Amino acid sequence: MATDETEVLPESYPMNGGDGKVSYARNSFAQRTSVDASKKFISEAIADLLDTELNPILDSSIRFQIADLGCATGPNTFYAVQNIIEAINSKYSMNKHQKSQALEYQVFFNDHTNNDFNTLFRSLPLPRPYFPVAVPGSFYGRLFPKDSIHLMHSSNSLNWLSRVPKDVGDINSPAWNGDSIYCTGTAKEVVEAYSNQYKKDMNNFLNARALELVAGGLLVLVVGGVPNCVSLNQTGIGKDYEIIGSCLVDMANKGLISKEKVKSFNLPLYYPSPNEIEKLIEDNGCFGIERMETFPGKGKHIHNSQMWPMIVRAAFEAIISNHFGNEMVEELFGYYSKNHMDKVSIFNGDDVISLLHLNIVLKRKN
Amino acid sequence: MATDETEVLPESYPMNGGDGKVSYARNSFAQRTSVDASKKFISEAIADLLDTELNPILDSSIRFQIADLGCATGPNTFYAVQNIIEAINSKYSMNKHQKSQALEYQVFFNDHTNNDFNTLFRSLPLPRPYFPVAVPGSFYGRLFPKDSIHLMHSSNSLNWLSRVPKDVGDINSPAWNGDSIYCTGTAKEVVEAYSNQYKKDMNNFLNARALELVAGGLLVLVVGGVPNCVSLNQTGIGKDYEIIGSCLVDMANKGLISKEKVKSFNLPLYYPSPNEIEKLIEDNGCFGIERMETFPGKGKHIHNSQMWPMIVRAAFEAIISNHFGNEMVEELFGYYSKNHMDKVSIFNGDDVISLLHLNIVLKRKN
Repeated sequence: MATDETEVLPESYPMNGGDGKVSYARNSFAQRTSVDASKKFISEAIADLLDTELNPILDSSIRFQIADLGCATGPNTFYAVQNIIEAINSKYSMNKHQKSQALEYQVFFNDHTNNDFNTLFRSLPLPRPYFPVAVPGSFYGRLFPKDSIHLMHSSNSLNWLSRVPKDVGDINSPAWNGDSIYCTGTAKEVVEAYSNQYKKDMNNFLNARALELVAGGLLVLVVGGVPNCVSLNQTGIGKDYEIIGSCLVDMANKGLISKEKVKSFNLPLYYPSPNEIEKLIEDNGCFGIERMETFPGKGKHIHNSQMWPMIVRAAFEAIISNHFGNEMVEELFGYYSKNHMDKVSIFNGDDVISLLHLNIVLKRKN
Repeated sequence: MATDETEVLPESYPMNGGDGKVSYARNSFAQRTSVDASKKFISEAIADLLDTELNPILDSSIRFQIADLGCATGPNTFYAVQNIIEAINSKYSMNKHQKSQALEYQVFFNDHTNNDFNTLFRSLPLPRPYFPVAVPGSFYGRLFPKDSIHLMHSSNSLNWLSRVPKDVGDINSPAWNGDSIYCTGTAKEVVEAYSNQYKKDMNNFLNARALELVAGGLLVLVVGGVPNCVSLNQTGIGKDYEIIGSCLVDMANKGLISKEKVKSFNLPLYYPSPNEIEKLIEDNGCFGIERMETFPGKGKHIHNSQMWPMIVRAAFEAIISNHFGNEMVEELFGYYSKNHMDKVSIFNGDDVISLLHLNIVLKRKN
């Protein structure tokens, strides 16, 4: 049993806690967009693919156990779970000999140990058709006993690597990423370092889930990705990361932060292509791809210079302050807000390619 | 499914959160005493009473699910759980055809929704032989799906009622408790009000647990009680509550807090006698009493005027500040510390009767 999570998770940067001005709870409408966009896909997948007959636990009992991996502090996780439960209820009510009324749902909300679970619990909807539970720890390791969950869901979370690939922040490595703070997709060694980390993480993720899901259980993933043969610096998100990076370089040039710190800073984020994730799941072998759909994200929030910097701050403040210290955070996001506003027209450029939503349903092989 | 916990829990006063000077995490050694004192009793009860054959979930799977009800922020809950798991492992290792090595434990830590679960998660021991999970909500309502837990434990928590009996704070009721802040055991109407609330709460507790435990599952309770035919004002704890009450009256006389507020304040605590709890469990009918042991608490901490007021504050600050407001808390505990020190000799009096630890093991009837 993987009980020492430090072995699998050297880095852990939760979304901003609480429910204040810069909290994730109040600045997660961008992530909400993809929850909404995936709603129909997930409902249909459950209707078509959920096996209500073969499940050994469901045969002998009336409980259904759902996990949301990377739940943060809400509220998006509550919308996603509500949608899943409605779809399962519909599915069971179609089988007349099964009583969906009698089903009892237990929902496991998972995120890093330092996630603000207190805020999550205090925001739980009432009434709610499930028994809520929180599970602390990295989903790149084991979280649940074997064969104990019927359906797992993860939205907007698997783009976060378990760690920044070591070499990209090392000025002496051929994979050093220079002043860039993300995997642009252009430098071969940097792409390899990120891609290898992603493969390793996804294998850990899939191996753990294969043990924890019941045979035939569903794993529903909503992941941001790049279209095949597109690199991240061609997308709006990539261009936005370049704005953040340029703010850091400016602050370093003004002597406000250390240049070395900028050279060693990278975001632990990766956006796979559909081909890449498909091959990875097939190579892993624990799951069959039952359904996969990609559609371009609208990315409308990135055009809003009032809201967008708050969304970015709620997600990135922990990782930035961990690397540079707390003192510079307010000033950085001040610079960044101004720069985002000044450069907002670049997100409308003809050359900007939309990021993809990848909706994937996997079924655990027996 | 009881999903609206406000229906069953009008009042909820968590132990002090965080890990600072007045936190429960740093001021819970008194409660630790009873965890330690019950250790041998619980180990033996598991060795003798845990049914490793009949459990339908354990037959088809290798997971064992444990719940600790009223976990607060740790660390006592971790000691209690560790002890339980060691006892279960021993039990399984005696049955040679069963592999205790392969058992996977999932531990559900339960307390009120406003308990500081963030501190609990950050204090989890490493390594640990279980998958930890937090469950928010009052244990006087449903917390888990049916037939989903193998063993439940609750220590030092069932003395907390779901609410102060309404009438004891009502100056117009015959059950009004006057300036007293607890159930002394002398005024008949007050005793009845408290005792009725306790019966109602315990029935709710037992009915919920009977649904949630698997058939044959164990419910291990460690509860503070008074000896048969003894009233609480004859015990050290009773005398201590009188000191707190007298501090409140003093503060009201000085105009620092409202006299009406003092007249309406009561602690939602109840200490049953062995006869009372035994009858209540038999009348409820869901569980068989497999083992019951009472022994006098040493109550050594109550003599320590450095530590004891901190222990009381960590447990009572929430309920006191909720009733009187935050402003008076520091001053009250200043008064109380001084009074406790001045009067500490009363705890040594020949007339002081020890509170009991009641250790009880119940088995769910089929």
